[in-house]
Amino acid sequence: MKVECSIEDVFDVTKRNLEGGGLLLTSVGSDGQNNVMTIGWGLVGRLWSKPVFMVAVRPTRHTFKLLEETNEFTVNVPSDDMDETVAYCGKVSGRDHDKIQERGLTLLSGKNVVSPMIESCVAHYECKVIGKSMVVPELLSSDVLGTSYTSGDYHTLYYGIILSILMNR
Amino acid sequence: MKVECSIEDVFDVTKRNLEGGGLLLTSVGSDGQNNVMTIGWGLVGRLWSKPVFMVAVRPTRHTFKLLEETNEFTVNVPSDDMDETVAYCGKVSGRDHDKIQERGLTLLSGKNVVSPMIESCVAHYECKVIGKSMVVPELLSSDVLGTSYTSGDYHTLYYGIILSILMNR
Repeated sequence: MKVECSIEDVFDVTKRNLEGGGLLLTSVGSDGQNNVMTIGWGLVGRLWSKPVFMVAVRPTRHTFKLLEETNEFTVNVPSDDMDETVAYCGKVSGRDHDKIQERGLTLLSGKNVVSPMIESCVAHYECKVIGKSMVVPELLSSDVLGTSYTSGDYHTLYYGIILSILMNR
Repeated sequence: MKVECSIEDVFDVTKRNLEGGGLLLTSVGSDGQNNVMTIGWGLVGRLWSKPVFMVAVRPTRHTFKLLEETNEFTVNVPSDDMDETVAYCGKVSGRDHDKIQERGLTLLSGKNVVSPMIESCVAHYECKVIGKSMVVPELLSSDVLGTSYTSGDYHTLYYGIILSILMNR
């Protein structure tokens, strides 16, 4: 059963997964097609007087197209037995693969956004994009440039207001 | 006594203060002069494979000049009895006021950065800027524009790698 909770309730498990295999970001295109991708980076807190989850998406990703179309996403924190799914969703693109079907994921309808939740995950942040900023090479340290941008493909940073957080009870 | 800790140890008190009076950001200019300002917004998590604290500073702020000079800052989480100091440090500018002296704040030398810690605070994030991004009006929702940027003065977003976190024991 999924119940409403606060960031504090799920911060530890969120951060542990960011440092481990990653989190699962779901989004939906204007055609209603869902996609899921693995993210290893994310920031949470408060910006523009709102609770915010920031995610970074490269323009070459299929998810980028969907976020640009609908400006919504859900961040799902995987359970411990989802390592293979998390790895798979970071390897193949939603342009060529229906990852949700291929991994047998059950979706739950969102409460505040159209992006679905992944039932087997343990926590879910429903977010609506309220602002974006661009990563540009001139504003990065040489270390970040050398480790994260050897092929360019600079992220867009999406700041999503957190409309609700759900966790398993 | 200040001891090393993890983000998880101090996330709750950090978020509670962001939602309350704010946090105290210390920085130092190239001339060695310290300053402290109150921030109500901040994000923590993982970006570019590093633990990161993001802070937002407007170009008109004195802190903006210092961050541009030295690319370092420390975020201090105030104790419950520091409300007046937090309010004061959000009202006056370091250009005209030595807020540290006026509020009788005791500084502790940083361990990894030159920016000092404020002794009476309960937790401290030492950060070095590894990337920045610009807030531009074209990438904001009308709600954010209308509530946070009625006078323009668009923030620079500073992403600081968290080099250490200290808390009271």
